[in-house]
Amino acid sequence: MDAATFDLVVIGTGPAGQKGAIAAAKLGKRVAVIDRKEMVGGVCLHTGTIPSKTLREAILYLSGFRERTFYGRDYTVSKDITVADLAFRVQKVLGREIEVVRAQLNRNRVVTLTGTARFLDPHTLEVASSEGTTQVRGDHVLIACGTRPAHSDTVPLDGKRIIDSDQLLQGEALPRDLIVVGAGVIGLEYASMVTALNIKVTVIEARPSILDFVDRELIDSLMFFMRQRGAAFRLGEKVHSVGYDEKNRVVAKLESGKEVHGDTLLYTVGRRTNADLLNLEAAGLAADERGRVAVNEFFQTAVPHIYAAGDVIGFPALASTSMEQGRLASCHMFGAYCEGRWSTMPYGIYTIPEISMVGKTEQELTKDKVPYEIGVSKFEELAKGQMLGVDTGVLKILFDRKTRQLLGVHIFGERATEIVHIGQVVLAFGGSIDYFRDAVFNYPTMAEAYKVAGLDGLNRL
Amino acid sequence: MDAATFDLVVIGTGPAGQKGAIAAAKLGKRVAVIDRKEMVGGVCLHTGTIPSKTLREAILYLSGFRERTFYGRDYTVSKDITVADLAFRVQKVLGREIEVVRAQLNRNRVVTLTGTARFLDPHTLEVASSEGTTQVRGDHVLIACGTRPAHSDTVPLDGKRIIDSDQLLQGEALPRDLIVVGAGVIGLEYASMVTALNIKVTVIEARPSILDFVDRELIDSLMFFMRQRGAAFRLGEKVHSVGYDEKNRVVAKLESGKEVHGDTLLYTVGRRTNADLLNLEAAGLAADERGRVAVNEFFQTAVPHIYAAGDVIGFPALASTSMEQGRLASCHMFGAYCEGRWSTMPYGIYTIPEISMVGKTEQELTKDKVPYEIGVSKFEELAKGQMLGVDTGVLKILFDRKTRQLLGVHIFGERATEIVHIGQVVLAFGGSIDYFRDAVFNYPTMAEAYKVAGLDGLNRL
Repeated sequence: MDAATFDLVVIGTGPAGQKGAIAAAKLGKRVAVIDRKEMVGGVCLHTGTIPSKTLREAILYLSGFRERTFYGRDYTVSKDITVADLAFRVQKVLGREIEVVRAQLNRNRVVTLTGTARFLDPHTLEVASSEGTTQVRGDHVLIACGTRPAHSDTVPLDGKRIIDSDQLLQGEALPRDLIVVGAGVIGLEYASMVTALNIKVTVIEARPSILDFVDRELIDSLMFFMRQRGAAFRLGEKVHSVGYDEKNRVVAKLESGKEVHGDTLLYTVGRRTNADLLNLEAAGLAADERGRVAVNEFFQTAVPHIYAAGDVIGFPALASTSMEQGRLASCHMFGAYCEGRWSTMPYGIYTIPEISMVGKTEQELTKDKVPYEIGVSKFEELAKGQMLGVDTGVLKILFDRKTRQLLGVHIFGERATEIVHIGQVVLAFGGSIDYFRDAVFNYPTMAEAYKVAGLDGLNRL
Repeated sequence: MDAATFDLVVIGTGPAGQKGAIAAAKLGKRVAVIDRKEMVGGVCLHTGTIPSKTLREAILYLSGFRERTFYGRDYTVSKDITVADLAFRVQKVLGREIEVVRAQLNRNRVVTLTGTARFLDPHTLEVASSEGTTQVRGDHVLIACGTRPAHSDTVPLDGKRIIDSDQLLQGEALPRDLIVVGAGVIGLEYASMVTALNIKVTVIEARPSILDFVDRELIDSLMFFMRQRGAAFRLGEKVHSVGYDEKNRVVAKLESGKEVHGDTLLYTVGRRTNADLLNLEAAGLAADERGRVAVNEFFQTAVPHIYAAGDVIGFPALASTSMEQGRLASCHMFGAYCEGRWSTMPYGIYTIPEISMVGKTEQELTKDKVPYEIGVSKFEELAKGQMLGVDTGVLKILFDRKTRQLLGVHIFGERATEIVHIGQVVLAFGGSIDYFRDAVFNYPTMAEAYKVAGLDGLNRL
């Protein structure tokens, strides 16, 4: 039997795979995607971005979090929030999202092959499922196979009370207190969510500081905010072992000799790619020690007709960037490439409250000896902030003292991930802080923070 | 007694007066503001933008409006929402906002004079209060006296069940059904809010269509959405008389012979300015038949040292624009003028769901014979939309088919007033639809709608 042949075969249907497949289809190409039946949409949809961000909205709502400014610290909408309450929403959004992905692929006539993929040669892939094995041939291949949580010998996951982020919604009851090992984006997002539910959290991180690419002031604010709600941070502390104590509580023993006890431990130290499952050698490719596949600026691997995009190529491994990488990979392979606007790429961190940033940080500018000035707006002074019950948050703009050119925007607080895109456009067009002085902003909005910060910055000159 | 002399005397402390006073103070000028004791902050704060938008957030929350997608149409957080529930929040935000305004004025050493203002001559104002009468002299004067609801002989307001928008939160119980006369921005905002509370609304408007400056598709969507929730529209119908019927219900008799009965009637047809209270003749000025004071592009009246800004100069009479006008007026009078970005001014309409727009509408472009193309994103297809329980909404971008230049952005739905500012910057910098294709957007956000609409638009070329 000859293998069916496509212009492009995509391995994985997460954000990178989806957008890569659709971009190629829009260019009139015949495209097939391969994914495991239960994984259409990838990690983003099943255990990553979508569930965690849905969970976040559910917690914000059910906990009455934003209403506490009006009704007091102990206010909640639902007195007893259960895992079922939370899982209900996640399932609802997830089901709908799977439909959206399927419909999009179908509408663009992308063929979906169900099973696990494996290279037989640089153009041929074997697709294996419980129903048997088929082969498929691609003039081009896009590797978008994604990642899975990394495991460690020191932390014996049991899927019950010592878990990774994939197992988070499988428990029956919410823990009374939680230990989070690993203060990366994922760990902090979950830790801050749980804090909003008034569950005590201890965050353990081996490095002495967290999220080093983020503005220090924002991180300080986040930690202050979380501590106020009962979170504790153990930074610069390595986990020696994890197990259960005599009271059947989870205990993490640290190398410093300390012990941290809790109901449940969530392990979020890193992820590893699924490239080890692809038999890359048959394609003439190899992954690095962490399973990453190297690509050039066009997302081409060492074998020119094979591209890779998404988490498998490493940092920043965000759904937002993976989508762009997938799209640009397909555009390049079929001659429709245009450059991505990577230099003005925003980062969104969905902690509670959320963080978002674009452009340079104060640390970077200081290192580069750029004489910058800042302009600041506090969210609790905005009319919209008060209406939404926002009692914390800040927007900070950095600009060149001489040219007034905007250099960076850093936001901590409600709707940060939305409004960062306003500053992003000004940055992308090389605009100055004067834009914020001259533009009219809807009133009341959180976006008005730019106006306030702009005027504040200009008053500092 | 000689009158105290200031570089600038501002009449009114609403958005225009406040920002005018502060801008002058920042330029090192001695500034006084005059306002009635109970009116610091102006109509915006007391009966306008702030209460209505706070009410809106309270209704959105207490009605569980956004949660209905998850929990069904009849879901509410509070079973019995009372006027007291709503008024509580409004009072809380209002109290805080008065503090913010007072603190801002004090911090900038603006002198506050309490009382009603009246011109004695072009430079001198009399300030009258229960504590007596003083005089104050300004090298410059800024008229920012604002408006009050217009009244009509056909609608005998009684402050009980035949009311204007100033009297809205004075009632004891929420009406079971409401008649709104006047489908301007204010009328529609209140009508849509009340609709969210499952209160039946009939909107009566003399013109055959509503909000003619807004994209027709958005208006159709709003009306469809409101009708689905029990609202009725009587457009092109004039009110002949209003009174109480034999069952002690309010009845509005229309010129067409129809009768509309309801618990309460809200009259929102137009506003008139407070200029008639200022004795303008003594300053050598006159208002037009609707009480408006004419100004040039620098907000100067016919008497060059007297400026006017805010609602008193007419359209668009939004807090957002009034602030800018006040600021620019002061900047011009003291030689620090810079041009406002009026051509890329957004409009925000706080209906439920909200509407926001910037740039040209399809109607305008068609009239001007500009061959435009559109790009569309539906909110219910966005991951963030699903997470927030958004089941309606659309973002539409208009761009030039040849040059691809962005021409307009029109949004109906959750966070429209925030995210419109992203498109606004692209418009202001003369950017093209390509920006949305190339930029990375945080995922999940409502802002992502630009990406979807951008790709959709480009696929239509």
